[in-house]
Amino acid sequence: MTDQEQVKRYLEQERERHLEEVMAFVRIPSISSSSEHKAHMQEAAEWLASSLRTAGLEHVEVMQTAGHPVVYGDWLHAPGQPTALIYGHYDVQPVEPLSEWQTPPFEPVIRDGKLYGRGATDDKAQMYTHIKTVEAFLQTVGKLPVNVKFCLEGEEEIASPNLSPFLQAQAEKLAADLIVISDGPMHDEGMPSICYGLRGLCGFEIHVKGPKNDLHSGLYGGGVTNPVTALVELLGSMKDADGRVTIEGFYDKVHPLTDADREASHPLQLDEAKIARELNVPALSGEKGYTFLERTSARPTLEINGIYGGHQGEGLKPIVPSSAGAKVSCRLVDEQDPDEIMAQIRAHIDRHTPAGVTVSVQQTHRGKPFYISPEHAFIRAAATAYTDGFGKAPVFIRSGGSIPIVETFAKLLHAPVVMMDFGLPGENMHGPNEHFHLENFDRGIATLCRYWRELASVSTQ
Amino acid sequence: MTDQEQVKRYLEQERERHLEEVMAFVRIPSISSSSEHKAHMQEAAEWLASSLRTAGLEHVEVMQTAGHPVVYGDWLHAPGQPTALIYGHYDVQPVEPLSEWQTPPFEPVIRDGKLYGRGATDDKAQMYTHIKTVEAFLQTVGKLPVNVKFCLEGEEEIASPNLSPFLQAQAEKLAADLIVISDGPMHDEGMPSICYGLRGLCGFEIHVKGPKNDLHSGLYGGGVTNPVTALVELLGSMKDADGRVTIEGFYDKVHPLTDADREASHPLQLDEAKIARELNVPALSGEKGYTFLERTSARPTLEINGIYGGHQGEGLKPIVPSSAGAKVSCRLVDEQDPDEIMAQIRAHIDRHTPAGVTVSVQQTHRGKPFYISPEHAFIRAAATAYTDGFGKAPVFIRSGGSIPIVETFAKLLHAPVVMMDFGLPGENMHGPNEHFHLENFDRGIATLCRYWRELASVSTQ
Repeated sequence: MTDQEQVKRYLEQERERHLEEVMAFVRIPSISSSSEHKAHMQEAAEWLASSLRTAGLEHVEVMQTAGHPVVYGDWLHAPGQPTALIYGHYDVQPVEPLSEWQTPPFEPVIRDGKLYGRGATDDKAQMYTHIKTVEAFLQTVGKLPVNVKFCLEGEEEIASPNLSPFLQAQAEKLAADLIVISDGPMHDEGMPSICYGLRGLCGFEIHVKGPKNDLHSGLYGGGVTNPVTALVELLGSMKDADGRVTIEGFYDKVHPLTDADREASHPLQLDEAKIARELNVPALSGEKGYTFLERTSARPTLEINGIYGGHQGEGLKPIVPSSAGAKVSCRLVDEQDPDEIMAQIRAHIDRHTPAGVTVSVQQTHRGKPFYISPEHAFIRAAATAYTDGFGKAPVFIRSGGSIPIVETFAKLLHAPVVMMDFGLPGENMHGPNEHFHLENFDRGIATLCRYWRELASVSTQ
Repeated sequence: MTDQEQVKRYLEQERERHLEEVMAFVRIPSISSSSEHKAHMQEAAEWLASSLRTAGLEHVEVMQTAGHPVVYGDWLHAPGQPTALIYGHYDVQPVEPLSEWQTPPFEPVIRDGKLYGRGATDDKAQMYTHIKTVEAFLQTVGKLPVNVKFCLEGEEEIASPNLSPFLQAQAEKLAADLIVISDGPMHDEGMPSICYGLRGLCGFEIHVKGPKNDLHSGLYGGGVTNPVTALVELLGSMKDADGRVTIEGFYDKVHPLTDADREASHPLQLDEAKIARELNVPALSGEKGYTFLERTSARPTLEINGIYGGHQGEGLKPIVPSSAGAKVSCRLVDEQDPDEIMAQIRAHIDRHTPAGVTVSVQQTHRGKPFYISPEHAFIRAAATAYTDGFGKAPVFIRSGGSIPIVETFAKLLHAPVVMMDFGLPGENMHGPNEHFHLENFDRGIATLCRYWRELASVSTQ
């Protein structure tokens, strides 16, 4: 039996145990944004460390940061071969609104070949494809074709505030020839893809302060600026009727889409009517003159993620509220810089703040856009691996999401980043009923098995 | 000792007990909008009934409705004299935000001659001036100069959904020559006033529905209509840069303010800089071309009372929210009709709904504006009574608030409504740290003592 056959047989034999492990992992409510889940974050980190040890990794440790810990482990016994740093994250998004989950978010179940639970696709099961691939090699043939390091963090969903300092402090320990990340969806069902571009992120919170306390709307209504109205005006001033962002300078560093760009992405065009049906909206919409695919990957956006102010409970409370606020995030592309964009937004707000209220703005998130050439040798190797693992050549795409750490890794570790996504659109990442197609658990592992072999041959060509 | 002297001495002797009763009444958390306070509503009604019996009223009963009960009691032994129906309400507004109360809302305390607690001015202490006035007459001279009926409801703060059917069913029992209500503020400290006009109310809730669940803003941002953005656009489309409401037809039935109107209200003009300082806002603002007084009493408004949508908790949740909503209320004047206004708003929303979302609107509140001539005999008698009770002639004002039941009473019982307010602006009606100036408890009772005598002489002139 060849090495390859041994690995394959091991994965088949151990599959049920592997899935049970993923489910146990999903059961840990590792919500990084909520301080009440701090103990669960530590629990998830310890669980991962134990999982890395079981796989056969060495130097496994739970490394403390100023926030949630990073889990590290390595196997470095392939001299002359490249070293891949595998990144993943064990934290998950909040779960509200709970009432919309068909089964509780932290009680994973398998229905119709899909694993349901918060974190299933983002990023627990995807991260596990890497751990189980390494385990399959080390527990059968006793070695990997390449060197690997794992760097698994617990703060991706809160924009990785402690990852940069960690990478800087541990630059030597984490040094690698490439970074591999599986933390997103492929282009579409039956259409494996390699993502060579990501949007950046500029997140901020606006707070509008009006009268010192809520006022009776009969006695004061019409007489003072209503902070909710002021917020509505401010937010309204940020987009025009064509869905274009009206922040001055916002599009200055966005490359216009060329006819060639548009032609290249033609085979990727999605069935917009089908997407609208799936999302249960009357129609897709957005910036005029662009397709859904372009709007969600190649164009920048400004989205209101949340808004609040005044009375929200049962009944009417006829007040002029004392304050109001909104959480907003811009997705950035090409050369847009989150700090420049933030400065433009602040200037816009200064110019548009209505009389009678005071407005404060706090930047909460910043991440630069990312790009790697589809012609890079490590990307070509990934394409070969996908073709093997999925039985189909991947398409090359730009993703609309932001993984600020991708840009951080590229910048701080001076190594190319290869995104090998095994999720699917529609798996409700961040929403209720998040799930992961388990067929892609197996295909993902098969792809990774081939990738490590392929990388070894790339480097020795 | 004259009857008048007996009544006065009784009120002085019993003052402390009377205040203790008011405080015990404020202690009952009778929040009508919240179903969890249902038992407290019954408790407050029973308390009031007991208080009416102590005063010497007859036929006292707690009358059930489809909602919270109405408390009734009467004294009808002044043949040939007018019958006054005294209206009040024992329900109070919600108390959020609790953190802004200096002392708990339902643990009343007296500081600097003011009684602090939810419902102190709206309407528990004001209502008690009536009960204690009647008690003073009946427990001393054994009779009142006029006939009185009390009708004390528990649903004013939720727009009195069951009062109209109650008044219709009990029209005979409640028949009166005038209705007297003490449920608002006077014009200003040291400036007693009689309110001869009230704004009407049209309250509604807008709900914007987008995708079936929250979406990842990286993957879908820019590609679908964000319901919060759609709501912001919709609400933004309802006012122009001059603070005018842009709903088509909104001002059709508003009488333009004449030079005479403006001159008449000249002595009432408020110190706008002082109000801005008290409210802690940079400036007062609102519809262009009108003073603060005009904007808050003679002009209609559209105020957003609350807004919600997407993630509101700690941290950023980068989503396109599934839905958003807002609670809005318009204050109406002159001939504006809440149902006509609602129809205009629905038409406006239909015309302005952005593509890609569905919008639903639910009217929650309707109340017509109210007006009584300042020359009416019952109003002139009230002016005489105020001059006696406060040592100063009252001014005549229009109030910006809405007491929809005022118009309901006038319509259903075919009797004029006399508003005798003893509260003050700045007493934080509906807000945190609501309070009532106790000197106006005494002055209010003195005013009412004189009013009942004055009414008797009016009717026999």
